[in-house]
Amino acid sequence: MTDLVDRLAIEVPSWAFGNSGTRFKVFGSPGTPRTVQEKIADAAMVHRMTGLAPVVALHIPWDRVEDYGALRSYARDLGVELGTINSNTFQDDDYKFGSLTHLDPKVRRKAIDHHLACIEIMNQTGSRDLKIWLADGTNYPGQGDIRGRQDRLADSLATIYAQIGPQQRLVLEYKLFEPAMYMTDVPDWGTAYAQVSTLGERAVVCLDTGHHAPGTNIEFIVAQLLRLGKLGSFDFNSRFYADDDLIVGAADPFQLFRILVEVIRGGGLAADSGLALMLDQCHNIEAKIPGQIRSVLNVQEMLARAALLDIESLTAAQESGDVLTANGVFMDAFYTDVRPRLARWRAERGLPEDPMAAYAASGYQARIEAERVGGTQSSWGA
Amino acid sequence: MTDLVDRLAIEVPSWAFGNSGTRFKVFGSPGTPRTVQEKIADAAMVHRMTGLAPVVALHIPWDRVEDYGALRSYARDLGVELGTINSNTFQDDDYKFGSLTHLDPKVRRKAIDHHLACIEIMNQTGSRDLKIWLADGTNYPGQGDIRGRQDRLADSLATIYAQIGPQQRLVLEYKLFEPAMYMTDVPDWGTAYAQVSTLGERAVVCLDTGHHAPGTNIEFIVAQLLRLGKLGSFDFNSRFYADDDLIVGAADPFQLFRILVEVIRGGGLAADSGLALMLDQCHNIEAKIPGQIRSVLNVQEMLARAALLDIESLTAAQESGDVLTANGVFMDAFYTDVRPRLARWRAERGLPEDPMAAYAASGYQARIEAERVGGTQSSWGA
Amino acid sequence: MTDLVDRLAIEVPSWAFGNSGTRFKVFGSPGTPRTVQEKIADAAMVHRMTGLAPVVALHIPWDRVEDYGALRSYARDLGVELGTINSNTFQDDDYKFGSLTHLDPKVRRKAIDHHLACIEIMNQTGSRDLKIWLADGTNYPGQGDIRGRQDRLADSLATIYAQIGPQQRLVLEYKLFEPAMYMTDVPDWGTAYAQVSTLGERAVVCLDTGHHAPGTNIEFIVAQLLRLGKLGSFDFNSRFYADDDLIVGAADPFQLFRILVEVIRGGGLAADSGLALMLDQCHNIEAKIPGQIRSVLNVQEMLARAALLDIESLTAAQESGDVLTANGVFMDAFYTDVRPRLARWRAERGLPEDPMAAYAASGYQARIEAERVGGTQSSWGA
Amino acid sequence: MTDLVDRLAIEVPSWAFGNSGTRFKVFGSPGTPRTVQEKIADAAMVHRMTGLAPVVALHIPWDRVEDYGALRSYARDLGVELGTINSNTFQDDDYKFGSLTHLDPKVRRKAIDHHLACIEIMNQTGSRDLKIWLADGTNYPGQGDIRGRQDRLADSLATIYAQIGPQQRLVLEYKLFEPAMYMTDVPDWGTAYAQVSTLGERAVVCLDTGHHAPGTNIEFIVAQLLRLGKLGSFDFNSRFYADDDLIVGAADPFQLFRILVEVIRGGGLAADSGLALMLDQCHNIEAKIPGQIRSVLNVQEMLARAALLDIESLTAAQESGDVLTANGVFMDAFYTDVRPRLARWRAERGLPEDPMAAYAASGYQARIEAERVGGTQSSWGA
Repeated sequence: MTDLVDRLAIEVPSWAFGNSGTRFKVFGSPGTPRTVQEKIADAAMVHRMTGLAPVVALHIPWDRVEDYGALRSYARDLGVELGTINSNTFQDDDYKFGSLTHLDPKVRRKAIDHHLACIEIMNQTGSRDLKIWLADGTNYPGQGDIRGRQDRLADSLATIYAQIGPQQRLVLEYKLFEPAMYMTDVPDWGTAYAQVSTLGERAVVCLDTGHHAPGTNIEFIVAQLLRLGKLGSFDFNSRFYADDDLIVGAADPFQLFRILVEVIRGGGLAADSGLALMLDQCHNIEAKIPGQIRSVLNVQEMLARAALLDIESLTAAQESGDVLTANGVFMDAFYTDVRPRLARWRAERGLPEDPMAAYAASGYQARIEAERVGGTQSSWGA
Repeated sequence: MTDLVDRLAIEVPSWAFGNSGTRFKVFGSPGTPRTVQEKIADAAMVHRMTGLAPVVALHIPWDRVEDYGALRSYARDLGVELGTINSNTFQDDDYKFGSLTHLDPKVRRKAIDHHLACIEIMNQTGSRDLKIWLADGTNYPGQGDIRGRQDRLADSLATIYAQIGPQQRLVLEYKLFEPAMYMTDVPDWGTAYAQVSTLGERAVVCLDTGHHAPGTNIEFIVAQLLRLGKLGSFDFNSRFYADDDLIVGAADPFQLFRILVEVIRGGGLAADSGLALMLDQCHNIEAKIPGQIRSVLNVQEMLARAALLDIESLTAAQESGDVLTANGVFMDAFYTDVRPRLARWRAERGLPEDPMAAYAASGYQARIEAERVGGTQSSWGA
Repeated sequence: MTDLVDRLAIEVPSWAFGNSGTRFKVFGSPGTPRTVQEKIADAAMVHRMTGLAPVVALHIPWDRVEDYGALRSYARDLGVELGTINSNTFQDDDYKFGSLTHLDPKVRRKAIDHHLACIEIMNQTGSRDLKIWLADGTNYPGQGDIRGRQDRLADSLATIYAQIGPQQRLVLEYKLFEPAMYMTDVPDWGTAYAQVSTLGERAVVCLDTGHHAPGTNIEFIVAQLLRLGKLGSFDFNSRFYADDDLIVGAADPFQLFRILVEVIRGGGLAADSGLALMLDQCHNIEAKIPGQIRSVLNVQEMLARAALLDIESLTAAQESGDVLTANGVFMDAFYTDVRPRLARWRAERGLPEDPMAAYAASGYQARIEAERVGGTQSSWGA
Repeated sequence: MTDLVDRLAIEVPSWAFGNSGTRFKVFGSPGTPRTVQEKIADAAMVHRMTGLAPVVALHIPWDRVEDYGALRSYARDLGVELGTINSNTFQDDDYKFGSLTHLDPKVRRKAIDHHLACIEIMNQTGSRDLKIWLADGTNYPGQGDIRGRQDRLADSLATIYAQIGPQQRLVLEYKLFEPAMYMTDVPDWGTAYAQVSTLGERAVVCLDTGHHAPGTNIEFIVAQLLRLGKLGSFDFNSRFYADDDLIVGAADPFQLFRILVEVIRGGGLAADSGLALMLDQCHNIEAKIPGQIRSVLNVQEMLARAALLDIESLTAAQESGDVLTANGVFMDAFYTDVRPRLARWRAERGLPEDPMAAYAASGYQARIEAERVGGTQSSWGA
């Protein structure tokens, strides 16, 4: 178990520390960062409490700065690296009817150029992954030509991919719906897979655990994409309904366990796997830094349980067609309380045994609430 | 058919003319109203083009004015009435953890008082219905006590209901989820029904067609609530996924047809029915005034088809257990193109035969785009 | 914890020991009972291994015998009681288009009479509950009149209810769909609640955990029906998709935990609650007796975890609006491994510490496989 | 429009004329075929009434005969051809835990051999397509190794594909769930696409319209698979909930319209397309032959509406970003009543103007009910 747990490193997204909400309301909260530096500081605190979050993902333009080299140094001084660069083609008026899929070549070019600018940033931050999530889609039947949009998407991605460096990757994310309400241009793993397969080896898929239709067996997709060599990264979160963006493991811890069983089974934690484990959540009503701490702990805890799976007994039961024993072996791992062991794991590494309590006791929250006064709190708009 | 179509009167919501969007982006558009008066003017234009939308629903506080009597006169001068008053307890920081269900009696009192203020407004606008949609709910298991919240909801509603006048109604809307992501306090028609049944005769249920779980048979709920005497109003819209708030009839016109068949069957269009037919949609990317015109036309068109249903043949087929013939009779009504007849219906009443074309030709859009410059465009915030 | 666990008594259904399957295939297995007596013997073995299943529910006509008094004695001799009587109006050709809702009064009368015969059996078996699950519904729009069917259902139920004895209850089950594919006459808890409320105090609702639309918050319904005094019984099972009828807790153990939290919260385990906890599952491919053992253990285990919930800390966190702490307290109970404690609980009561292993070691399976040769294996047909 | 309608040829499945049902009950009906010859006769009657169904798909072993050449002649004499051969690896006890994916090489070999036998039959019937729908999957987490099963599936398919003739195709169908309740080995189009892409050019995907998760945009998949050159065939039917297998177009005619728009757009009706349009439905409670007649008429009717789509106006509206006009053009085609035109189309070809009425008047049903007495009615078992 320890071996696998030792390999766990999670990317936390800078935007998790800013405000987020629903179309109905965005609640602010004291201490919310106003700058990318403050977001990185908060992320570093998550890492300091847990030892699990050594990388911070950025979102462009929300985290745009003049000097990315300086930002990288700033992060390193705090003990974290800059990670995945996430592009944004959904908040500009030009993108009302699409970005990489837009009928108008000028808008497509603008969206492509934005991605090329992101690659430039990656070169400076030392980031490996360009993650592309597109809001592209249509709200009404007839509004767009499904086939034509798909072809234009392929063209745009090829143009971007041509600029991806030899140590870099293009990661394409899929999502069932929202903000598009009728047709989404990259709605499922099949589409993402077909698109990246055409591009080449350094194009892979991002699986956001909240982006599927009800009833979808997500661990199957994990197993399949790992088998096909195309699972590039996760966006971890959880959901009861749609893309709820709740804390990973909060809605269905057993599902998270099953997903991590397949990650291990498919070699996703092997040294050469390249699989990035990111969070992508919205702490709309709960405290943000503890929310991220809880999230990385949830991943660690379920990974530790998954690592306990007795593969030998499981295989024996599978081979004998003993459904109940196979399931029993599987559940044994899930039902085992690994929290004491993980507390020891932390203690051995000089980390707080109880990161949630340690954060509460750290005074960090009081400090940022006192210091971060004035300015504009970060949110999805910036 | 004509008889039923003649009875159709739809309430359009003032907020449909303001900007709306998703949590990702709200797109503005030229000509968007800045004031409630401008919203009412737009609504009146919808009525002028279609003869179908004689009432405008208001939302408090978005449509708050000093003098509601003056507003009523203003609307009447434009040919429309003020209708349902919609309360809002989801945009104030105090309501982060609930409103009518909140643990803190001060917050509950504030939410109750808001509704009492709405009743005061109703007294001035001559509105019959107070519509309550609550964003109340929780995002995480354990966050709130489901049972306690339900009990407090009952208490709060009783306090409000006590102030509802003898000619007024309290209309309680239900919704599966959003903005709450784990537990919603009024998630289904059963809860709304149980709550309003306890209150009394003038408490009824609002059915928003986009507020159900996947697979829910909405026309069944329509039939059931009409049978129980508790269907107070509709919020019409359509959806492919969640609460997409698309134009009514756009996603599944056959479903709208089936709903209207049950409305007719259940006496929902009878003179004494009291059933309010409201729109509640978000024109995020399409033009708003034509969007409303298209919406009321869709309801009229499906009602006209539903009115064609040959009940005698249908009943005969049902009685003989002839499934295919019964379904065939049902589909015959749906498949009949009523548009020419409705064009004549309009012509006979001095209305444009083609309201969409008439609006485009009217110059209204160009005029408001020229006139409505400066100020702040209305949206869900105001 | 022990106090609540001590109160747990689960009804196992006789039909769980017979063969079941899908529309594609029913797999048989050696040792499957041929008679109701053999089913009861198997059920008694489940109780002997676990101490959790002292009652066997029967299904009429599948479990029809000449002498129910003798059957009751037979069961008692094996250490179990006869429980809920389940009616069946879905396997006779007459019910092709409905039973209690049928247009033809003769078919309705036949279906009513079947229920009256069930009440007669209850009088002999000493059963308290008549459980009614109806397959009634339609496959095509127009096939039936939704409203008329609902009215006839109400009439039929009233006729049956009139014969329910003072110590007996009528329990009405709801189900979203299947076998009806378009409209089901009792599709949701709201309908079941409205129908039983009209009947009277001894009419209550059965909640089958697999009978809801995707995304439905089942623990909310549990809380609501307990609050309304109308939750009569559970049919426990679990599902990933539709009415999969998998082992309870197998698909989403955390959901089962949440449900049992609300059962405790709502007084469902209080001495006077009257809430019946039944299993209703299909062991299509797994061994049946161990499948039932695993099932009752799952309920016990999740109840034990739910019983650990620290209500005081939870309430304090709720009151302070501390979402993460409230959720943390909630999850603490869920994450605690209660299996060692439950093994001790069993040992203290002279039960096998590991019921699954004890059953495997008991020789029972080999014995029934040797003895139960010839005859017709029980299934849904008999 | 006529041009496209003229190209429409639908395969009806032999098993549609036999009895089918749910796990709860299979209702028989007078006149049901006892032999494959009688099924073909019924299918020929559907073609005689409509001119739309010149091909009959067979299911092995249900339609196994000694002499397939004779069967082919028999069919031709009745005016129809034999079409797709559908394999069956879900009704043998050996397949309880899988077929092409089974852990045991003997069971895999048996399943492979069955498919090779089907290819032999295809050589005799002149069939082009071997359609493979697998019930393979698991009911419980841990029961099987997802990754290993996928690898074995790939191996098995490769062995079968090696025997597919140069004019033949292997068509792989996907399905979300049922009969497997937790993990299905070919659950989505992505998996089917990945598997057939590895095999080669003559391996394609079958899209069954009822085999998707709630909310899935099926016309998107149609467009995507046509774009990728991998859409081999349709299994048409319709659904409100799961794999309901209702008459195509019955649940959501507008969805069928959108699907057929994409079929046309993607060249699916072009002379060289190779796209097979099959029905796959269950007439559980409605009359079977008229059920098939209604089904092919529904496809024709929606195709005729789709053919009316004014592409030029649609494109112009799309290019100008006029969402409402684009949607309006789209809906115009859907709302146009094409039934009179199709009646004329039939009259011009010597077909009955009203096929449903013509069948009722034909005396065919009375004749088969009189003649088909004794024997065993065909069903999924044979």
